Amino acid sequence: MKHYLSINDLENLQEAVKEAIAIKENPHQLKTIGNQKTVCLLFFNNSLRTRLSTQKAAMNLGMQVTVMNFGSEGWQLEFEDGTIMDQGKSEHIKEAAQVVSQFADIVAIRAFAGLIDKEKDEAELVLNGFRNYASIPVVNMESSVTHPLQALADAITLEENKTKEKPKVVLSWAPHPKALPHAVANSFVEMMKLQDAEFVITHPEGYELNPKITKGCTIVHDQEKALENANFVYVKNWSSYSDYGEILSQDKKWMMTKEKLGNAKFMHCLPVRRNVVVEDAVLDSNQSLVIEQANNRTYSVQLVLKRILEKL
Amino acid sequence: MKHYLSINDLENLQEAVKEAIAIKENPHQLKTIGNQKTVCLLFFNNSLRTRLSTQKAAMNLGMQVTVMNFGSEGWQLEFEDGTIMDQGKSEHIKEAAQVVSQFADIVAIRAFAGLIDKEKDEAELVLNGFRNYASIPVVNMESSVTHPLQALADAITLEENKTKEKPKVVLSWAPHPKALPHAVANSFVEMMKLQDAEFVITHPEGYELNPKITKGCTIVHDQEKALENANFVYVKNWSSYSDYGEILSQDKKWMMTKEKLGNAKFMHCLPVRRNVVVEDAVLDSNQSLVIEQANNRTYSVQLVLKRILEKL
Amino acid sequence: MKHYLSINDLENLQEAVKEAIAIKENPHQLKTIGNQKTVCLLFFNNSLRTRLSTQKAAMNLGMQVTVMNFGSEGWQLEFEDGTIMDQGKSEHIKEAAQVVSQFADIVAIRAFAGLIDKEKDEAELVLNGFRNYASIPVVNMESSVTHPLQALADAITLEENKTKEKPKVVLSWAPHPKALPHAVANSFVEMMKLQDAEFVITHPEGYELNPKITKGCTIVHDQEKALENANFVYVKNWSSYSDYGEILSQDKKWMMTKEKLGNAKFMHCLPVRRNVVVEDAVLDSNQSLVIEQANNRTYSVQLVLKRILEKL
Repeated sequence: MKHYLSINDLENLQEAVKEAIAIKENPHQLKTIGNQKTVCLLFFNNSLRTRLSTQKAAMNLGMQVTVMNFGSEGWQLEFEDGTIMDQGKSEHIKEAAQVVSQFADIVAIRAFAGLIDKEKDEAELVLNGFRNYASIPVVNMESSVTHPLQALADAITLEENKTKEKPKVVLSWAPHPKALPHAVANSFVEMMKLQDAEFVITHPEGYELNPKITKGCTIVHDQEKALENANFVYVKNWSSYSDYGEILSQDKKWMMTKEKLGNAKFMHCLPVRRNVVVEDAVLDSNQSLVIEQANNRTYSVQLVLKRILEKL
Repeated sequence: MKHYLSINDLENLQEAVKEAIAIKENPHQLKTIGNQKTVCLLFFNNSLRTRLSTQKAAMNLGMQVTVMNFGSEGWQLEFEDGTIMDQGKSEHIKEAAQVVSQFADIVAIRAFAGLIDKEKDEAELVLNGFRNYASIPVVNMESSVTHPLQALADAITLEENKTKEKPKVVLSWAPHPKALPHAVANSFVEMMKLQDAEFVITHPEGYELNPKITKGCTIVHDQEKALENANFVYVKNWSSYSDYGEILSQDKKWMMTKEKLGNAKFMHCLPVRRNVVVEDAVLDSNQSLVIEQANNRTYSVQLVLKRILEKL
Repeated sequence: MKHYLSINDLENLQEAVKEAIAIKENPHQLKTIGNQKTVCLLFFNNSLRTRLSTQKAAMNLGMQVTVMNFGSEGWQLEFEDGTIMDQGKSEHIKEAAQVVSQFADIVAIRAFAGLIDKEKDEAELVLNGFRNYASIPVVNMESSVTHPLQALADAITLEENKTKEKPKVVLSWAPHPKALPHAVANSFVEMMKLQDAEFVITHPEGYELNPKITKGCTIVHDQEKALENANFVYVKNWSSYSDYGEILSQDKKWMMTKEKLGNAKFMHCLPVRRNVVVEDAVLDSNQSLVIEQANNRTYSVQLVLKRILEKL
């Protein structure tokens, strides 16, 4: 694997999940594979799980880690070609990406959607800027449109917790006071399309995800119907894609409850707003898999770093 | 030792001090005890000594270290149970603490008093939040009410510099332009209660510390009288405890001077305001122990991490 | 070498460049020389190249690294002697420098010019504060007046790319929308004075650098004439030194173009404003050495750290 930009960069999801579970069983088995190799984590947005899990995974592989908060510790980057840079932006992505490539063997990038300009978000200026101009492999730590490390952690969690060959998995929209990006939902859908499962997406009308991503997926607007006989319920808010970045509904009826969940396992990428996205009774029950999902973030990125290191 | 939340978590202060001094003599003697173990330092407030000494100590033990400034690199946490989280707080301490526990073997927390709501400060929301919900040991890097790593460093410094079996140690309040927390003074008092020493606290009226903490201590409001024949003078400002967080006096007469100090050794936890808390002549003399106190911060936390590692 | 504050701290520039090139050929040859040694990087200003290259170099030598953004993670320092510290500054450089010396074996400092008060900038309060009060070696990661790690990287780049014994090297001022410090230009000039080269400085009138630094250098105000037969053109903006910190000109005619460059190699320390300082056609051509200059930052600081470690 050269870059890890999308869940589809894994040749075979099932094999990747198996390998990640083997790493989880013995996280230090490859403790020298990363010797004398450095991964540089560049954060254009805040982070808790991604920040700590990626450092942990890299150190498990014997790598050196450098961490930089680009916004507060660096300066604004220019992404347009041919601009006269006489305004607020001090450095062009062409230089920044090439320069970081001198100081690391792998670069990992977090850069969220701005949710104002759909076209700009979909152009993935930061992630693609690094992919285009860096001379080293690039890992996506959540971009405008995708969050494939989360999706791989989710796949590991599903594999570890499924009790039948072909479980029913429901992605259920939830209300939220802030406009949130689509990245987690998008990558979860892309990952589910690679799974042998009955997969249903449910959300209020107007909250359709990018149809190119959900193409072929079952979408049901009646949440109750969607949840029937579910084995796993993945709850997540996102803002409108058609009315880009807008909050169309904060309808509390869409909050996940113990009653609605039935016997299903509950999943969420975290951070989660209690009693807005999901009620306490769910998170505090043993049906919740959220902490194990977070734990699997380490093995998800450790698998990715390992595969990249093997090809360096 | 499971957690290190208070100086009283050390079973025997004298033995801990002896062991810390032995570590100081050969800081790298245990350089593999922390291999494949990670300590995560979470700062909810700024730090210089604690930040650098804790990293140094952890690396001396062969540990991996991750550092996160929760305020600027993460988001606001919710600490109340049962809240509807539809306001500014993005994650509940229940999740945050459990999640950090997936990525580290020990978590160390710095979270100062707000000095507005006494009850809230005394509830130690952040520290106790992590103690209650984390599944890993918690180290107090200065909480609302206590700073036990400083107190242990102070105990080491006293031991190294005492010239008689039972020295006279005075804790003397000093003026300061900003309202400061009680944590350092509280932990120093708690530590002194475990020492074989003549211990006197002196401060203007109205600056009484929490009486539960100073119970049994000699308190003298006449600074001159308190300082008579002192061997060590520990100077520190704190805001009022009864008029919680208020500055009742900036009386310059309480500043420590060379004259008042006599032949005693001067101690302060740093940072210190020169010529407000203490005059230059004291800090620039060889009676000052402040740099050695800072140095002992490394061995204080190294002892604590070592003892926790031994029980992991 | 005790400190690295100026390019003149290298006894012999040519030997230092040779040694740095040897390190570059095998960066891990000295991977244990820094074992159990810590370098603490203190940033009073933002950084990309310096931040990442210094960490990389230190880790190549087996050192431990601690990084602190003093402004956001610490507090304001006092530099004046004898002040009554009852205003915004919480700690004196005397304590800060001595304290950092307890937690590291080498301290590296970045602190830019404020460009408001020339005398204050030239006093190098931060750098000299650490040099005066720290008990450990100090490395200059760009101070108010000099940037000797950049100058050493530039010397390495010149050595690697020169095609004749005594090349013609031109330092050419360029326009910029913001007032920038003189540090890079100053250190480049100081470094060139140690080289066997034909060295010419060109800038609009009013942009004379500190005459003590350029003493003995050829200064030509006609850019076209200065660039004739150049082998290397180092382009850099700086604000006025005589009208201290002022922007006297943004004359676009001074921007470097492919046409003006001729067959010369192009150098710049980065970050660079495209189509303001230099046109795209130069940076995107193989005449540009800017990425290699950045790469050489690692070997520049690795040489410096190695030499300091050898004397510890």
